Amino acid sequence: MADVVARCRELAAITEEEGRTTRWFGGDAMARANELAGRWMAEAGMAVRVDAALNLVGSLPGSDPDAGTLLLGSHLDTVRDAGAFDGPLGVIAAIECVERLRAREVTLPFGVDVLGFSDEEGLRFGTAYLGSRAVAGTLDEETRALVGGAPDAASRRGERLLGYVELHIEQGPVLEERNVPVGVVASIAGATRAEVAFTGRAGHAGTVPMELRRDAAVALAEFVLAVERTARAAPGLVATVGQLAAEPGAPNVIPGRAACSLDVRHAEDAARAQAVVALSERAAAIASERGVELAWQERMATPATPMDPELTELLATAVAEQGLADVRLASGAGHDAVALSALTGTAMLFVRCAGGISHHPDESVDDADVAVAIDVLERFMRLLAGGR
Amino acid sequence: MADVVARCRELAAITEEEGRTTRWFGGDAMARANELAGRWMAEAGMAVRVDAALNLVGSLPGSDPDAGTLLLGSHLDTVRDAGAFDGPLGVIAAIECVERLRAREVTLPFGVDVLGFSDEEGLRFGTAYLGSRAVAGTLDEETRALVGGAPDAASRRGERLLGYVELHIEQGPVLEERNVPVGVVASIAGATRAEVAFTGRAGHAGTVPMELRRDAAVALAEFVLAVERTARAAPGLVATVGQLAAEPGAPNVIPGRAACSLDVRHAEDAARAQAVVALSERAAAIASERGVELAWQERMATPATPMDPELTELLATAVAEQGLADVRLASGAGHDAVALSALTGTAMLFVRCAGGISHHPDESVDDADVAVAIDVLERFMRLLAGGR
Repeated sequence: MADVVARCRELAAITEEEGRTTRWFGGDAMARANELAGRWMAEAGMAVRVDAALNLVGSLPGSDPDAGTLLLGSHLDTVRDAGAFDGPLGVIAAIECVERLRAREVTLPFGVDVLGFSDEEGLRFGTAYLGSRAVAGTLDEETRALVGGAPDAASRRGERLLGYVELHIEQGPVLEERNVPVGVVASIAGATRAEVAFTGRAGHAGTVPMELRRDAAVALAEFVLAVERTARAAPGLVATVGQLAAEPGAPNVIPGRAACSLDVRHAEDAARAQAVVALSERAAAIASERGVELAWQERMATPATPMDPELTELLATAVAEQGLADVRLASGAGHDAVALSALTGTAMLFVRCAGGISHHPDESVDDADVAVAIDVLERFMRLLAGGR
Repeated sequence: MADVVARCRELAAITEEEGRTTRWFGGDAMARANELAGRWMAEAGMAVRVDAALNLVGSLPGSDPDAGTLLLGSHLDTVRDAGAFDGPLGVIAAIECVERLRAREVTLPFGVDVLGFSDEEGLRFGTAYLGSRAVAGTLDEETRALVGGAPDAASRRGERLLGYVELHIEQGPVLEERNVPVGVVASIAGATRAEVAFTGRAGHAGTVPMELRRDAAVALAEFVLAVERTARAAPGLVATVGQLAAEPGAPNVIPGRAACSLDVRHAEDAARAQAVVALSERAAAIASERGVELAWQERMATPATPMDPELTELLATAVAEQGLADVRLASGAGHDAVALSALTGTAMLFVRCAGGISHHPDESVDDADVAVAIDVLERFMRLLAGGR
């Protein structure tokens, strides 16, 4: 058996930037990462290729040519100064599952393809899911041009596919709080992003009495607290103000303008839409009460992606049969499964990670948790094959 | 009679930066501004010189050599992209008063020196009151080196001085709200500046449930509202958060750190100190309730400068004798009078300005208000001379 965590760390040494892990679409580091992971795929008995969208693909044939193909995997690209597990863990764990099947001389009826996607983080072009959208055949014209070559050749449309199952670190603290190694994803949350700005009247910090002020920063502060209050009151809702700014931004000047980002997510689109409306109404009320102007600009709105019910139940069964608690959770972060769900049914297994930390070199998983997750994924494949 | 407002506008055309008014200590624009204002001083019958700290000095002798000297004036330097009146109005109005005395053939027993200070805004070195501190003889070693040459020669220590009276735009909206052209300054407020930072735990905006967050930006927002509430509850107190920042500062990341500036001012030092203590306690309570860390760093604390009681009463008498309402107010902004109060008694007369706007090209005063202010200042000088 290979040491999956050690392999993740080995892959993390492959980088565009000395001293930290950074791999972007089409870069030299991605080519070398594909080469190393491809060697592990070959050692596990898979036929290896890199597709037209630079995704790494390892194929293990099944015993029944008509039984179709199960897709496994995750991405091999990273954010800047990344950890070792966000993405690579799902690819390497899938390779390990294939390796185990071979070691146990189990042949599945269906084929298994392990995919190492070339661009989930969007570091190079700001376009997330470039690799997985190519496989799903949903690349738009503009992104197709960025990829270059003939990325349509990467599409798996028209093939008989059994689904796509992705193993990924949770990137959150829920499993740690619940004290369980793995959880089954019910849905990937939809997200709304907006920029919210208040415009009042700048003035001298020493000379304008409090009652004559129209301070944009205080209006913004009231809104930030409303964001927290609204999210706390709605189960499953998360809402975040990640950016704050006041203008002109001098200690002795009352801010005439203050702006923030807003990020709202929920597994159910209706709940998210309701929260966004409530927050925009609250922002308008604050502006009106304080005699300042409100500018609310929606920047992005992506719907929730429900996981495939049958695959998800099968995954939950595998968890239960391993003697583990069946914890279901929504993914607040996006994943390649979002893009693949346009092609085939998807399911996801989350692995507990330390402190919920991700997108950081401190990203960490427990070896025992990874072993449990691989056991679950292997059992899932056997269940899907109708065996035990 | 000269048109004082027109002269302020003429002076505003003298600048280091094309298209906006910017004059810093020791610059070519300041030399040209001194030359122009010096010409007006000479036309009003004054002996003109530039002192060792580059202050412009116009001297009108009195009839009694033992009667001492009254200092009038303000500053001729500006902020970047300044208005035409903050500083220059006080200098040019004082020149106009001297001109009127001559036109009316009035000779005062005491001498009158009109000062155009070389550095009140501190644009070049970040050191406010450089010119007036040189005159007061209170330059510290470090600032003395910045000035170059022998700035101590600018000191008026040891001379028989009757006081320093400064006419200045209000830079606030109080006189406009009260519907009066001028107001007498009772005190220049003291100020405390601090940097306040909360450190919580950064995290993924999509994956960390609300109840598990330690969001530094929300703690900061709570503090910003507490600043407003505290200031509103204490008469005469102003407190301002002019700068806001969240780190790492991405829309999809829960802020792990959030910081703001704090500026607290009050005419009474005890009231300011009490407010600062209350705010730091409130910040500590917010941090404790939210499980985040607080860092409170005091950056500056300057005491209030009370105006000289006798000069101030005489100025108020001049206001009343002009048939105007006697409105007293604290100055939230600092002025050369702060530095001069270490040398001699000081008094200040504020002139109403449109919308309380200053440090901006839109800075504006009414011609009629300026005429009233000059009448008051002239009457003050006659009262000081014991005449009517």
